[in-house]
Amino acid sequence: MIVALAGGVGAAKFLSGLSRVVGPSRLGVIVNTGDDVWMHGLRVCPDLDILAYTLAGIVDEVKGWGIRGDTFECLKQLGQFGAETWFQLGDRDIATHIFRTRHLRAGLPLSRITDMIKEALGVSVKILPMTDDEVETRIDTDQGDMHFEEYLVRERSAPRIKRIYFKGIENARPSEGTIDLIRKAEGIVFCPSNPIVSIGPILAVPGIREAIAESPVRKVAISPIVGGKTIKGPADIMLKALSFEVSPVGVARAYGGLIDAMVMDTRDGHLEPQIRGIVPRVTVTDTIMTDQASKTRLARETMEFMGWD
Amino acid sequence: MIVALAGGVGAAKFLSGLSRVVGPSRLGVIVNTGDDVWMHGLRVCPDLDILAYTLAGIVDEVKGWGIRGDTFECLKQLGQFGAETWFQLGDRDIATHIFRTRHLRAGLPLSRITDMIKEALGVSVKILPMTDDEVETRIDTDQGDMHFEEYLVRERSAPRIKRIYFKGIENARPSEGTIDLIRKAEGIVFCPSNPIVSIGPILAVPGIREAIAESPVRKVAISPIVGGKTIKGPADIMLKALSFEVSPVGVARAYGGLIDAMVMDTRDGHLEPQIRGIVPRVTVTDTIMTDQASKTRLARETMEFMGWD
Repeated sequence: MIVALAGGVGAAKFLSGLSRVVGPSRLGVIVNTGDDVWMHGLRVCPDLDILAYTLAGIVDEVKGWGIRGDTFECLKQLGQFGAETWFQLGDRDIATHIFRTRHLRAGLPLSRITDMIKEALGVSVKILPMTDDEVETRIDTDQGDMHFEEYLVRERSAPRIKRIYFKGIENARPSEGTIDLIRKAEGIVFCPSNPIVSIGPILAVPGIREAIAESPVRKVAISPIVGGKTIKGPADIMLKALSFEVSPVGVARAYGGLIDAMVMDTRDGHLEPQIRGIVPRVTVTDTIMTDQASKTRLARETMEFMGWD
Repeated sequence: MIVALAGGVGAAKFLSGLSRVVGPSRLGVIVNTGDDVWMHGLRVCPDLDILAYTLAGIVDEVKGWGIRGDTFECLKQLGQFGAETWFQLGDRDIATHIFRTRHLRAGLPLSRITDMIKEALGVSVKILPMTDDEVETRIDTDQGDMHFEEYLVRERSAPRIKRIYFKGIENARPSEGTIDLIRKAEGIVFCPSNPIVSIGPILAVPGIREAIAESPVRKVAISPIVGGKTIKGPADIMLKALSFEVSPVGVARAYGGLIDAMVMDTRDGHLEPQIRGIVPRVTVTDTIMTDQASKTRLARETMEFMGWD
């Protein structure tokens, strides 16, 4: 089993390629749930849904999230009732949140509900939320302490970051099967996601970092930073806020010894020698994923580079 | 204040006329909540919503419920997740249920939330749920004991009725302002609704029947039965199940002494003498409401007949 740690859009793109290369039954994904948020009394799990929708082939590929062709009638009406509408939720997407919330309230763990959702969508890749407990990525800024989604979507990453923390993480337990999955891994992939707020919360769930560190298999990260910027999301701002270099070097340092290999973009080729000082194995390739062919190519190159074929 | 007791479609039609005739600020409506049901973890209040949507001018007039032009994307997707889809919920309609459920879970009483919803829809008529407590109209049938909506919508009123009861009614309290509204009434109207499962639950909330009985003002019922049948819904079946005649006579008897006047349809004119033996004042007119003009005319005739102008 190839085990991947995943955040949102970048990870989902990469994993749609990896799933084709290795076959869905050989892939298990541990997904960040720090972005999860209560909206309108519904539990929204952005990263879990982006991944499930992407693997199901129904994601809105222009936005990278949500369901292609979805309508927004329900949200419009919620707006008429005075509810907040800065977080876009389509009508079909809302069905996922209604379904999840109903079963959460009935006492089912998020991991079991995630199974039901992805199975209904015809996805056979194993998808595990990092934890069944509620964890909340909070950003303390010059404009107040806020949920990650409020910072990212409502405030468009404008406030100056003072501190990033994961509320509830001390008491979170890895969801059932997570540690087992890591122990059985042939190889571990850190997807091209935000190291601080996407992969960071996963590693911060007590037991997960330890299990990865103890695993004898090889571990590779695909840098989400290309040419000093992120493709999507505020990883660049966050690395800077935590005094990491905004480059694959900063990414490698952020994973502090957990990885032994890195896939980085040709645009950052000049940094290769520096990165070799942090991780023993490095490959340089085109990491920009614009279509299915480039996703599959990047996944195949990663597999070959790691010798996992 | 004219105070009305209301169920669903028939009541909403009549009240949209009455609101025009007396002006919205002179009208207060106490609405049945026995049909309320948890669907997909959302609290759905069919009669409250039919009334609010009708008074807001956004009701789907062909169906009599739901929002005109609504789409059903969310429900379709819920169906893909294996959820029940026999209860039609449109995307904009679902916003109402999401909004209500969120605030119910936050501890707001249904009456306060109903206020928020109708105000957002621009409705100024006073709308009061009969109670803020959960009451459930249950139908015990030869195919099992079921919720009223399961009997009506899922089973299309086919099972043979053994018993009708209102679960939780003993402990239900009239919602805040309800008894006060009745005490201040200039007149009380029993809308053309199902006497058993629409008006019945309202009268069964401890304190409401007593307050109406004690009120010195005049009380009129508009018969929902015309020519031995209901315009909509299973009132005919239910009257029969409880051994009432399926006619304005049965309706008058079902209200057992609470009313002192009745508006009945010309098609039942031959029953007038019999009804005069039960209620002192009777008027015979065309009670079928097909358009705004006929709703307004019926409301005006009722007001004139009662001398409430």
